[in-house]
Amino acid sequence: MNTTPPPLVAILMGSKSDWEVMKAARDTLLQFGIPNECRVLSAHRTPHDTAAFVEGAEGRGVEVIIAAAGGAAHLAGVVAAHTVLPVLGVPMEGWALKGLDALLSTVQMPPGIPVGTLAIGKPGATNAALLAVAILAAKRPELRERLRAFRAAQAKKVLAETLE
Amino acid sequence: MNTTPPPLVAILMGSKSDWEVMKAARDTLLQFGIPNECRVLSAHRTPHDTAAFVEGAEGRGVEVIIAAAGGAAHLAGVVAAHTVLPVLGVPMEGWALKGLDALLSTVQMPPGIPVGTLAIGKPGATNAALLAVAILAAKRPELRERLRAFRAAQAKKVLAETLE
Amino acid sequence: MNTTPPPLVAILMGSKSDWEVMKAARDTLLQFGIPNECRVLSAHRTPHDTAAFVEGAEGRGVEVIIAAAGGAAHLAGVVAAHTVLPVLGVPMEGWALKGLDALLSTVQMPPGIPVGTLAIGKPGATNAALLAVAILAAKRPELRERLRAFRAAQAKKVLAETLE
Amino acid sequence: MNTTPPPLVAILMGSKSDWEVMKAARDTLLQFGIPNECRVLSAHRTPHDTAAFVEGAEGRGVEVIIAAAGGAAHLAGVVAAHTVLPVLGVPMEGWALKGLDALLSTVQMPPGIPVGTLAIGKPGATNAALLAVAILAAKRPELRERLRAFRAAQAKKVLAETLE
Amino acid sequence: MNTTPPPLVAILMGSKSDWEVMKAARDTLLQFGIPNECRVLSAHRTPHDTAAFVEGAEGRGVEVIIAAAGGAAHLAGVVAAHTVLPVLGVPMEGWALKGLDALLSTVQMPPGIPVGTLAIGKPGATNAALLAVAILAAKRPELRERLRAFRAAQAKKVLAETLE
Amino acid sequence: MNTTPPPLVAILMGSKSDWEVMKAARDTLLQFGIPNECRVLSAHRTPHDTAAFVEGAEGRGVEVIIAAAGGAAHLAGVVAAHTVLPVLGVPMEGWALKGLDALLSTVQMPPGIPVGTLAIGKPGATNAALLAVAILAAKRPELRERLRAFRAAQAKKVLAETLE
Amino acid sequence: MNTTPPPLVAILMGSKSDWEVMKAARDTLLQFGIPNECRVLSAHRTPHDTAAFVEGAEGRGVEVIIAAAGGAAHLAGVVAAHTVLPVLGVPMEGWALKGLDALLSTVQMPPGIPVGTLAIGKPGATNAALLAVAILAAKRPELRERLRAFRAAQAKKVLAETLE
Amino acid sequence: MNTTPPPLVAILMGSKSDWEVMKAARDTLLQFGIPNECRVLSAHRTPHDTAAFVEGAEGRGVEVIIAAAGGAAHLAGVVAAHTVLPVLGVPMEGWALKGLDALLSTVQMPPGIPVGTLAIGKPGATNAALLAVAILAAKRPELRERLRAFRAAQAKKVLAETLE
Repeated sequence: MNTTPPPLVAILMGSKSDWEVMKAARDTLLQFGIPNECRVLSAHRTPHDTAAFVEGAEGRGVEVIIAAAGGAAHLAGVVAAHTVLPVLGVPMEGWALKGLDALLSTVQMPPGIPVGTLAIGKPGATNAALLAVAILAAKRPELRERLRAFRAAQAKKVLAETLE
Repeated sequence: MNTTPPPLVAILMGSKSDWEVMKAARDTLLQFGIPNECRVLSAHRTPHDTAAFVEGAEGRGVEVIIAAAGGAAHLAGVVAAHTVLPVLGVPMEGWALKGLDALLSTVQMPPGIPVGTLAIGKPGATNAALLAVAILAAKRPELRERLRAFRAAQAKKVLAETLE
Repeated sequence: MNTTPPPLVAILMGSKSDWEVMKAARDTLLQFGIPNECRVLSAHRTPHDTAAFVEGAEGRGVEVIIAAAGGAAHLAGVVAAHTVLPVLGVPMEGWALKGLDALLSTVQMPPGIPVGTLAIGKPGATNAALLAVAILAAKRPELRERLRAFRAAQAKKVLAETLE
Repeated sequence: MNTTPPPLVAILMGSKSDWEVMKAARDTLLQFGIPNECRVLSAHRTPHDTAAFVEGAEGRGVEVIIAAAGGAAHLAGVVAAHTVLPVLGVPMEGWALKGLDALLSTVQMPPGIPVGTLAIGKPGATNAALLAVAILAAKRPELRERLRAFRAAQAKKVLAETLE
Repeated sequence: MNTTPPPLVAILMGSKSDWEVMKAARDTLLQFGIPNECRVLSAHRTPHDTAAFVEGAEGRGVEVIIAAAGGAAHLAGVVAAHTVLPVLGVPMEGWALKGLDALLSTVQMPPGIPVGTLAIGKPGATNAALLAVAILAAKRPELRERLRAFRAAQAKKVLAETLE
Repeated sequence: MNTTPPPLVAILMGSKSDWEVMKAARDTLLQFGIPNECRVLSAHRTPHDTAAFVEGAEGRGVEVIIAAAGGAAHLAGVVAAHTVLPVLGVPMEGWALKGLDALLSTVQMPPGIPVGTLAIGKPGATNAALLAVAILAAKRPELRERLRAFRAAQAKKVLAETLE
Repeated sequence: MNTTPPPLVAILMGSKSDWEVMKAARDTLLQFGIPNECRVLSAHRTPHDTAAFVEGAEGRGVEVIIAAAGGAAHLAGVVAAHTVLPVLGVPMEGWALKGLDALLSTVQMPPGIPVGTLAIGKPGATNAALLAVAILAAKRPELRERLRAFRAAQAKKVLAETLE
Repeated sequence: MNTTPPPLVAILMGSKSDWEVMKAARDTLLQFGIPNECRVLSAHRTPHDTAAFVEGAEGRGVEVIIAAAGGAAHLAGVVAAHTVLPVLGVPMEGWALKGLDALLSTVQMPPGIPVGTLAIGKPGATNAALLAVAILAAKRPELRERLRAFRAAQAKKVLAETLE
């Protein structure tokens, strides 16, 4: 009897090499106790599997999808094309252009298919998870409280910093 | 007896000149029957009013906040600093740099305070509203159906295009 | 009895508004007598139709696909994901960033799925058609001769320019 | 009995990791004998503390505020929103985009709330302190003389450079 | 008997064509009753006159210098090289690159010679004047009060905006 | 008796230092059994040799030319000026600007002389070879099958990735 | 009997549409009495004619070559590859990217083949001519005096500007 | 009795740290036997010494000036303002923006005062020297021959490269 709770958030990434960065998203979700599923799936190399995975997400209980890719980062846009769930995009630094390519490829979506885009790299990975928690919190008031506590702890940490 | 339904989405913009663009967000929300409130509030010129408005949003029933600004676009980030509700940012074209400044000022948030950023200008305004609908849909299955219908109609329109 | 020759080149574009620019590609193909098919298909709004159209292209006799899109221009990459035919991408100027977004979204493909990218806008549209002709010419020596004649005529026109 | 002179310049930074760079500002102030206070305060993580600190600065004797942040660097703009004291901004290199994001987020302020912006990183940190000294010098003629001496020494050092 | 008050702020610009924009700086100064002098002087075409004008500024009573230029905008840096007064730079849009060239040429000063840089174009012109007023206010408490009144009026105007 | 098959693809590069990257193109061609010739030839340092080599390519049996260069990367454009064969360009990272210069110098060809441009650096090198194979496949159905097998293997590898 | 003096400067441009801008170079040369020849010649469309023209320039008495092009502006680099005369490049605004592409394509020459690059568009056209005059002046002292007079007149004009 | 030949080229740089790069210019000049003088002089820290040095250059026999600086690289423009000799600018990589700031600050000179700009960093340093030689060669035919020999040797080296 499998008692694993169904995933509320899916984290997809275009390449295994993105995992080093995207672990920050997964770790943040775990910090809030959010069950999740993490997968390597490519908009270009596995288009049908990606479509199938995304189209099945709602049925598996997923409420938010986070997609990370570098270069001509199409993953978040392609994911958004296959679901009406909220899709969050995290541009990876990739090579050569330091993530400017991935940022523009993720954020400049034409009207009709939205992708909520976060910062390039690890700050974006963490924030994608936090935004996912904020979205999930609409139906789960305790998450809203946990977010408030997270913010308070974070503020406390800033205020406790000493210089030299 | 006021029977106006409480707003589910707040649309804030840094300057009245952004309204021409942000009307696309409001119109999209209305298309989905989402009650909303639209306000000019500035991160810099009215910081306390902005903070107060945002801190009161949850109490007024708001579930998603959309913030639009140009240039050194701080509005979305400042809004996000005052709420744990999901915040969506729309970079305005502004002057000189065609919105690249507003895009980077909105999307490159440090870890801890997320802003889901949409495209520069009107495409971003429309998509911010659509993403807000997708977020609201978690608790409102009929919105998810309306989004599916919207997508279907949109696809149909593309397929019906004729060239020349 | 339909005697229309099968299309050798397919020209896809993400939005009807791209047609104004992409007509230059079609006109160039016609100048070389290349039968072609032109369609509006969106990577995001009609993902399944786009996939089906592309997967059927080889069977319809298509040998090269040209794909044009603006903003987070995913069309060429998505087309390339569904075919082993050569795919050429033309970035559209779109809005705000003058096509830099579309250029990076089209050209910075990760290894494994190539898109041969041409210049932003009309020069790219014309050149995509010329490159398609060069590709088709491998099996059709007369096209190679026509290309040489085109080049010669073009050179002659340059040399005939007078200033004032 | 505390005889510490009140701070004339406040140096704020969005994260403790900025201190490595901003020490150059503090060291330059000390070189001119300017009492100062240095604090980590975040526009996003501690908005109310930041506002309170800034609103109290004038009362504590502060005449110039220097604010440093990276990424979507809102700190200087938010500080400027809470004071009529001169505010100087120093963009940090941050991650991925090498400080271009922080530069645009700091300098492209809309009309009404000015931030005098210096160069990205350590050169900007040093120059923010020197500009603060130049501002303080309006009421303190001896500072103007010290600036002249600083400039003369600096020129002398340049002229004394030998190559190989 | 000349009773004109001596100028407190000098506004320099590299070309008469900048005046259309820089008038906003002059008008803002006048709004605060600040006597000023406005001149076309070029870092490149009139280097000695520029140096002489700047070196004489302190003696004429000038306390802040605003310098505006476009393209490879060297004016503010060259001005700063000839004075220990606070120098504020305003990048002009110029041609081709929409002011990005002027922004980088003005703000990226090496350590030792600071230029406090404002936004590109008219917003920067207005803000340079406001920052000059804030600097002058250190010795003139009534200016600080006027700045507070200006801010309050500005906030009131934002809060009074109505949409449609 | 020389039985070496004639080269179907020529790989040119502007400098021997590009070989480290362009080996990926050669290796990919070898993986598909495509005979090829690799040469250092410069648009600037050996213009006549480059022209002669390119003009002779068709006669040697070459069907596609790949050209790689960095900085003001003129090689692909110059190659395209001397042949009607399909020319594919690979921008090298070069120095300082991380390949943005080479990308724009390669892709922004004026109408009349096309260069199909791939991504900056190694991903572009690999993809240039794959696109060359796709072009060669028009006359060689077995290559089309090998490309399909390559894609299938690549997809399988993505789907087999495990995280942690 | 042809008594036209031989041209000292050749002005080449990649397209007749550049003439509108490059006339400023020709007019500046005429202002200094420098005989010149102006031609449309393309690095891509007429490579052999361009090479021949450039290789013959020294023999015709040309001492400086100015080359202007837009987009992937290869003309100046290709010209420089065929001569040891000083070559000056003027990037044209072209389309989409406002001349940033032409600037990088012209200036980022690899070591060995120099192009002295001027500003984008008309300011660069004028300055290319002035730099050509400065180069010619090495053997013609009267040109150096005329340059001094030009500078003096230019300075006088700046100093005579009045604002309002 | 000092028999050192007078310098024909002056190489100026804004900071001693540029010497590492600019040595390539000096070494290239020495390779052609060109006497030269190399100095650290700053547009900002030593404006009067820089002006005096430049104004005296013609009298010392200098025929070309090379100026290198990073960041808001004003040195070449300031040098050009003080001489009618040909001035060549070399943008240094500097910090943060990889030399894009120095490139724009050097090349985007307004009409009237030209700076012939070379590539960022070491390639630009070498090419500045080569362009200086080409300029000097107008009066010194033997230099033109040496340039031809240099080019031939350079071509030979390219053609001799072997891969693996």
